[in-house]
Amino acid sequence: MDFKTEFVPMTVQPQEIESMSFDIITEELGEHNFAEEQYPVVQRVIHASADFDLGRSLVFHRDAVRAGIEAIRAGKTIYADVQMVQVGISKPRLAKYGGDVKVYISDPDVAAEAKAANLTRAIMATRKAVREQPDGIFVIGNAPTALLELIRLIKTGEAKPSLIIGMPVGFVSAAESKEELAKLIDGDVPFITNIGRKGGSPVSVAAVNALSLMAER
Amino acid sequence: MDFKTEFVPMTVQPQEIESMSFDIITEELGEHNFAEEQYPVVQRVIHASADFDLGRSLVFHRDAVRAGIEAIRAGKTIYADVQMVQVGISKPRLAKYGGDVKVYISDPDVAAEAKAANLTRAIMATRKAVREQPDGIFVIGNAPTALLELIRLIKTGEAKPSLIIGMPVGFVSAAESKEELAKLIDGDVPFITNIGRKGGSPVSVAAVNALSLMAER
Repeated sequence: MDFKTEFVPMTVQPQEIESMSFDIITEELGEHNFAEEQYPVVQRVIHASADFDLGRSLVFHRDAVRAGIEAIRAGKTIYADVQMVQVGISKPRLAKYGGDVKVYISDPDVAAEAKAANLTRAIMATRKAVREQPDGIFVIGNAPTALLELIRLIKTGEAKPSLIIGMPVGFVSAAESKEELAKLIDGDVPFITNIGRKGGSPVSVAAVNALSLMAER
Repeated sequence: MDFKTEFVPMTVQPQEIESMSFDIITEELGEHNFAEEQYPVVQRVIHASADFDLGRSLVFHRDAVRAGIEAIRAGKTIYADVQMVQVGISKPRLAKYGGDVKVYISDPDVAAEAKAANLTRAIMATRKAVREQPDGIFVIGNAPTALLELIRLIKTGEAKPSLIIGMPVGFVSAAESKEELAKLIDGDVPFITNIGRKGGSPVSVAAVNALSLMAER
């Protein structure tokens, strides 16, 4: 079939849209207290959500950006809690450094273990990831139980993530899980999280992609 | 490695979390003007975003829910604009009726055509989907140009979607593309969209999953 082209809507390319969007975000956000190195993460989170409140709610561990960039450059594996996070993360930039993104929540062994233990698959997927790479990068956009389990494994000494991006969204346990993470602010595990119920896969992905872009520079 | 289990955080199962969340949403949303058949979609959109403003901003074509359910039962193909939408949609419920979810934005032929025409890959992916199934279900959570192109192809008579879920997020063209869709409110193409910049993959996925759950009943 041949398409009529007289009404082609817009030929603005994605890169131009991104640059125009970033200008709007900077202008509308106005004053803020984020460090210069943190701002690209804030900007991409707002870009992904069109939500300034969500952007302003971000909390950075003092080492988060530096450690995140280093972890990406070191080719640490990124463990995503759900497939939407996994597919959203830009892979070619990670691959340059030998990095990859894995997600275990749908693995048959994880499902079987979860059923046997009467725990969530998200918990079992977190355990599998920690067994594989205790110092991996953990990105949690959906499952509060994944984040709570990761925090537990940090406290027992079994996990020592290079970076946590923990921004589950929701009404039950999401805000609470992020509060637990934020309590580790004086510890030595770098993290990025946010306050409140909002969050999700796209903003978690946006934070990772902001860091991998910084890693390239 | 054997994990210590004395601090297992929570054993609330995902279904319980969902049900608790829905109760909170109903209570906090309070009065609204959505029809009874539309409410499950509103509820899941709020559940996916923790954003009541986004939920309240939804706009339903009068036939959207009924036609969406029928289209799913008829096994119409769902065309997603991006992979995050594709992976988020629950497949087993669609498969019962012979339905599937396709995404063409990363296809090599789409990329080549986009480059040759200096148009976005999202536009070319929309054309490919419309050529394949002009009356498919189109779900757009990210790319305003995909939605604008789909609207153009409706106007030229080349597309006649069974349902459009159009909720791209962003600062440039997203709100405008949804306004264009909302102008078709008196036409005969059923759609669900929302007003403003917010939107995205998870809320678009939530709307589809709400309809496929209704289709099952």
